[in-house]
Parts: sequence; structure tokens; C-alpha cells
Amino acid sequence: MGKPAKKPRKGLTYADAGVNFATHDKLVTEIFRRVRSTYGPRVIEVDDGFGGLFSLENDRGLFSRNYRNPVLVACTDGVGTKLKLAFAMGKHDTVGIDCVAMSVNDMLCMGAEPLFFLDYIATGRKDLDVLLPLVGGVVEGCKQAGCALLGGETAEMPGFYPPGEYDIAGFGIGVVERKRVLKGEGIKPGDVILGLESSGLHSNGFSLVRKILARKKWKLTQHMAEFGQTLGEQLLTPTQIYARPVASALQVYNKPGAVAGIANITGGGFIDNIPRVLPPTCEAVIDTAAWTPPPVFSMLQKAGKVDAREMYQVFNMGIGMVMVTPPRHVDAIADRLEKFSHKGLPRVKTHVIGRIRTGQRQVVLQ
Amino acid sequence: MGKPAKKPRKGLTYADAGVNFATHDKLVTEIFRRVRSTYGPRVIEVDDGFGGLFSLENDRGLFSRNYRNPVLVACTDGVGTKLKLAFAMGKHDTVGIDCVAMSVNDMLCMGAEPLFFLDYIATGRKDLDVLLPLVGGVVEGCKQAGCALLGGETAEMPGFYPPGEYDIAGFGIGVVERKRVLKGEGIKPGDVILGLESSGLHSNGFSLVRKILARKKWKLTQHMAEFGQTLGEQLLTPTQIYARPVASALQVYNKPGAVAGIANITGGGFIDNIPRVLPPTCEAVIDTAAWTPPPVFSMLQKAGKVDAREMYQVFNMGIGMVMVTPPRHVDAIADRLEKFSHKGLPRVKTHVIGRIRTGQRQVVLQ
Repeated sequence: MGKPAKKPRKGLTYADAGVNFATHDKLVTEIFRRVRSTYGPRVIEVDDGFGGLFSLENDRGLFSRNYRNPVLVACTDGVGTKLKLAFAMGKHDTVGIDCVAMSVNDMLCMGAEPLFFLDYIATGRKDLDVLLPLVGGVVEGCKQAGCALLGGETAEMPGFYPPGEYDIAGFGIGVVERKRVLKGEGIKPGDVILGLESSGLHSNGFSLVRKILARKKWKLTQHMAEFGQTLGEQLLTPTQIYARPVASALQVYNKPGAVAGIANITGGGFIDNIPRVLPPTCEAVIDTAAWTPPPVFSMLQKAGKVDAREMYQVFNMGIGMVMVTPPRHVDAIADRLEKFSHKGLPRVKTHVIGRIRTGQRQVVLQ
Repeated sequence: MGKPAKKPRKGLTYADAGVNFATHDKLVTEIFRRVRSTYGPRVIEVDDGFGGLFSLENDRGLFSRNYRNPVLVACTDGVGTKLKLAFAMGKHDTVGIDCVAMSVNDMLCMGAEPLFFLDYIATGRKDLDVLLPLVGGVVEGCKQAGCALLGGETAEMPGFYPPGEYDIAGFGIGVVERKRVLKGEGIKPGDVILGLESSGLHSNGFSLVRKILARKKWKLTQHMAEFGQTLGEQLLTPTQIYARPVASALQVYNKPGAVAGIANITGGGFIDNIPRVLPPTCEAVIDTAAWTPPPVFSMLQKAGKVDAREMYQVFNMGIGMVMVTPPRHVDAIADRLEKFSHKGLPRVKTHVIGRIRTGQRQVVLQ
């Protein structure tokens, strides 16, 4: 083997092939400072380690005091074609929040407390002006969810993505006591369905949104009086992360059955997601007059001439998460959710939007 | 709200926008059968749950008997531009193995035992002929690694990926006893570097490979006498998963220090990865004559006129993983690794490829 190569070199190098390690290193340093701000005492830091370390702290008793029989809950999701709007607007600081929200809101449905999160970003060429706000959004999402950003991969894949474009996926791990795993088994006729307001479209239905926009030739930059912002800003509103308020509600009402089931209203809307927690002999009756969906939904429905039921199978219609509970608990739970506040986290509003009755594991819209 | 819509509908539906739920459902059913074959007794099955559940079994004592103070190790990675070769060859059944390997081999470097894995696949349109072999590869990788495929997301993102193309990323969770976390701190001058043979290029350096192929106008379909297979088949050889043999070696030699450090030779090759486990006062001297890299490396070097040192910074050069150990343990560890066998898993060959000496946290090629 010879000495380290001298420049200029005639042969191909990895940099020639589009992979830039200097930018990579700068990115890692810049990002690391922000990422570190999400660490709690359970994160074990390793310089340049091959993996992220998260202690379950059995010896210190902190974890084993709360969890006699801990079950890990793992979720993964991406942001979908909402990313195309971020590309079009050159606004990359919120889709990271969406990415965290998609996984974390799913794990809440199992009754879990988020522990940590990892992100995977793939891009054609590492561009700090894109990647720094992008990862900044992931950091913000982890703060809103109260979990550590334990690791991530930023893959440079020349020829895979056009300049300034990327895909992002997230992976969240939470924990729940085995006896408290929420599976909806305790849901019974007479239970009440409490809806937690969404912050807008969240991260689903964007393929249809983009189709409608294209058909109407609407511009993302146009100001919309009903939103008080541009169309693009409205559509890009980050997904509400329900982890902290829901944990707060579950903490107080943690007798098994006080909260009988939670469903994240994600791809498939009310129609597909609520049945995921219903026992085979129950159906959910939703009173669609119980709340007013934000104007973005009626605007899209009208513009796309979308069938009303289809709307509830694609979009969240203003309700991002539902909790099923016996009537005697609903006021207290709603109160707990609405009163919960945390720095930087939008407050959650709730509505009683329906009830459970004997039926066939389906959603009935009234 | 009206009744369910009758066909034909004039308005836009989600299917019009390129998202096909029927295909999705069929895919989920088909895949689930295979995925289930990776489950061990710690996986808690939930029908259509919002997350995957993995019990830490504190109550049954199985886990707490082995782990007094368990630390979770989390890794994420993709397959990079090796995917472009899979697309070009229409061969999708092995890159899933690569995807598992990338995360699992990383966590071994921390001394961890893999517990479970999740995959994220993004594609333009769900095509069962592509997705079934793709996920089949992930299942095979999880079996080779001895971990459960606990969940996954297959995102249909119309307009993001050309037909038949996709990106895939993986997330792996492992566990290690806190005292046994491998950080390389115990590495000292005089220690021996044991190299574990790779199965080929593994999943790094493919941007450069593709550049070389393009420059030489080589076809993936051409038969190469030195490989006894086509060029494309050789390049697509899946990454060796070292989890089971390495766990076997660590199990026997689990006194702290018997194995002082493990490095996965991934992006950045020997030059960047070995220093990640070196103490600041040690350097690694690699005797490049100690083994013969498979012909694919010399072929690429010659064709791309790639500088010799650059080769060791881009490729694994036939050594996919290195273990650092005091000389007195090396024969026994090598023996354990080479004798380990498991159904369907290629045997691992080893070479003593270098030693540790006082120096500056770098790799010296001799």
C-alpha cells in the first residue's frame, strides 16, 4: 500500500461520484448541537458511536418503579406527499414535526409513553440550507413529544432525488406497562367518543390535495382570506403532537378502562382508523354536526367535488385523534386535555363527537 | 351526512390520485404471513394495531435474568444507491437483506443483541411483484439476524418515484447490558485486529461503482468468468449479517475486555470506521497483504483508476467487520466465529489483519 494520495488525482473519487464528506461532517456537527437538546438523563452519549444508547435504568429503579413489566412499542411512518408542498414552497422547517407526529401519535393509541425517536433522511445532495431546517423540525417535534432524538441517518443518494428534494421517515420507540396496553378490548356500547382537534390536514391525503390544486390551477402562494395566510402555509401547518396532553390524561385516569381506546386519525380517516380499536361487536356513531371542520376541508371538498363520505376516509376533518371512554369519565378527561399546557405546544381542544353502540366494527356518519 | 357514495362518482377520489387501497390490503395480508415467521415469544400480537409490541418480560424473568441493567441500542440506515442496481436488474429479493444488515451490523459494534426491526419502504405505486420480494428480503434478513420484523410502513407516494423504483430504510433495536457496552475504551497497544470476511461490496460505495460502470459502459447482464456469474449478480450480493456468529463469540468471551472493540466497515471504509472505536492514543496498523480482497475490488480499482488508499476509504475490501482483541483470545474467538453455523447463513471466515499500536486514532495501511 502506498502513502496517502496526492492531488490532483486522475482516478475517480467518491466526491466525483457526488458524495461530499466535508459537507457531511459539517452537517453532523451543526445538527448534533440541536439534537443534544432533546436528551434526557437516560440517553448515554457515545462519541461517534455505531448506535444510539438509551438506558432502561433498572438499577436506578426509576424505570422499574414505573414499569413492572414494560412492553416496547415501535412505530414507523413517513410524511408522504406533503413533502412536495415543502419543496414547492422551499419551506423545510415543519415537515420534521410531521414526521415525529406520525409515529408518536400512533404509539399513543397503544397507551405508550414515547422514549426516543430516530429519523432517516434521503436526499440527492446534502444541502445544509435544506437539511438544517429539516432536522430542526425533527428536533422540535421530539421536544413537543418529550422524547430524545437518539439517532438518524442522512443518506446522500445521487441521482435518486432532484436538487432540494428528499424523503424523510421516522421511527419511534415508546413504552407501556403490559397490563395497560390499549387495544380497545374494553370498549362497550354506551361509551363516548371524544375528539381532539387537529391542527389542519396533518400528514395525510396530500396526493388528493395536490390533484385538486392541479385541477383548479391554484397557487400555493395565493393569500386566502379565510385562513389569514397563504394556501401553502395553511396546507403545510404541522401535525399536532398529542403525546404530552394524552399522557397527562392517561396518568390521572390510569385505571384500566377509564380510557378504553385511542385511535389516530391518519391515512384512511375516520372510516378506516376508528374500527382498528373497536371490538367486533361494536360500531362508532359519529355525529358530524358536533363540531365544525376548519374551512380548509370544505374548500377542498368543494374544489375537488369529493364525496362527503370519501372526505371522512381521506382526511381527519378537524379531529386528529379520538379517545373512547365511559360517559362518567369524559368531562374530566376533556378538562385534563384542554387545560394541559406546555411551552411551545398548541393547546388541544376537544368535542364529544359520537358514541359506541352494538354493531359491526364500523363507523356510521350521522 | 349522506349515505355511502354510489358509483360512478364525478368527484375525485383517493384512488384517482394514485393511491390504491385494495392493492394495499392484499399486500398487507400476503406480507403479514411471512413477517409472522420472524416472531419470537416476546412479540405481542395485536390485530391491526397502531404499533408493534415487544415485551421486555421482566415478570417472567427471562429478560431480567440476562440483563440487570439493560440499555437499548437503536440504529437506522438505508441501502443507498445499491438500489439502482436492483431496479436495473429487476431483482428485488436481496436488498431487504442489505437493509437489515446495515442496522444490525452497526448495533453489534456496541455489543448489542438484536431484538427487533422495522422497515420503511416508499414507492410511487404499490406493485406486488416488486414489494413482495422486497419485503421477503427483509424477512430473510431478520431471520439471519435473529430478530423480529415488528412493523413497517409501505408508503405510496405518487410522483415521488418512477415505476418499479423505491427507497427502503430500516430501524433496528437491540439490547446490551450496561457494563458490556462496547465503546473501544479497553483497546490498547498490542491488541490484534481480527477481520471477518465480507460477502462482497455490501451496501456502500455504489455511487462510485455506478460511475465506474457508466464510464466503462459495462452491462450488468454481462457474464464475468472471474465471478462465475453476471456482473450485476456479483454486485447485488447481499450484505453479510454478522449478528449470530458475533453473538456466539461474545457469549463465550464475555469478560469485559476479551473483545475490546468492534467496527462495522461501512461507508468510509477502513479509514473512517476503525478510528470510531479507537482510544485517542491508539492507531490501527493494517497489513493489507494479510488477506486477498475478492476480485470485484481489484476490478473496480483498475477500471476506475481509483487510488489505493481511496479504495480503503470507500469499500470494505473483503473485510466487512473487525474485532479488536488481546492476542491471547484471538485464536479462540476466530475459531468460534468460523465454526458457528446456522441454517441459511453463510459461514464467516476470519483473518488476523493487523494490530493496535500507540498513535493518533488513525488507520495506517501497510
